[in-house]
Amino acid sequence: MRIPNQTEGLRFRLVLKPGFALGPGKADLLEAIEATGSLAGAGARLDMSPKRVWTLVREMNEAFREPLIETEKGGPGGGGGARLSQLGRWVLARYRAMERDANAVVASGIEELRTLLR
Amino acid sequence: MRIPNQTEGLRFRLVLKPGFALGPGKADLLEAIEATGSLAGAGARLDMSPKRVWTLVREMNEAFREPLIETEKGGPGGGGGARLSQLGRWVLARYRAMERDANAVVASGIEELRTLLR
Repeated sequence: MRIPNQTEGLRFRLVLKPGFALGPGKADLLEAIEATGSLAGAGARLDMSPKRVWTLVREMNEAFREPLIETEKGGPGGGGGARLSQLGRWVLARYRAMERDANAVVASGIEELRTLLR
Repeated sequence: MRIPNQTEGLRFRLVLKPGFALGPGKADLLEAIEATGSLAGAGARLDMSPKRVWTLVREMNEAFREPLIETEKGGPGGGGGARLSQLGRWVLARYRAMERDANAVVASGIEELRTLLR
């Protein structure tokens, strides 16, 4: 679980419509699902509760035209696998690119502001 | 008071050191102090409680080498005035410029992502 305001740099959140935002939590979750192939694995990797994982997955799948995350019940071990849809991979890549661009544009300003801290 | 994730677009927060961030709340407060000339006036304008105003002012004044906000006790009406120091005005201007630059760089991506929403 992230502790707010502990990770230095730009905190970046895109509010796409009232009540729905893409931020670091959802982006990290998409990435962890892609890497681990399951919701349980992604939750464990991010130290995110199963309930929180499900809430974020549902929010994302309901917000977009097509689901970003595809789940299958009862895979090996009965746990069920999960993976990103084509749209899910596209959204994640677009988000990371925007995050990178925004970070690049503010990097020198952040350094400047830091020199003024006590 | 802002409702999180209700204002569409980029939510922008600069974590300058662990535990201290500059975000929309503090930037709006600096701007409102400059505009109204008092902490009470700024709080009223932003619908921010006096306690919250003081907390943010103290955080900012303690984080930077010099105070961003200068307060004087017992001005006209006994309320006491407040204004930004030279450093305060500089930090506010720098923050707004960074916010503007970051917004410009992600604007087309936000529009693209919006077209994919249900």
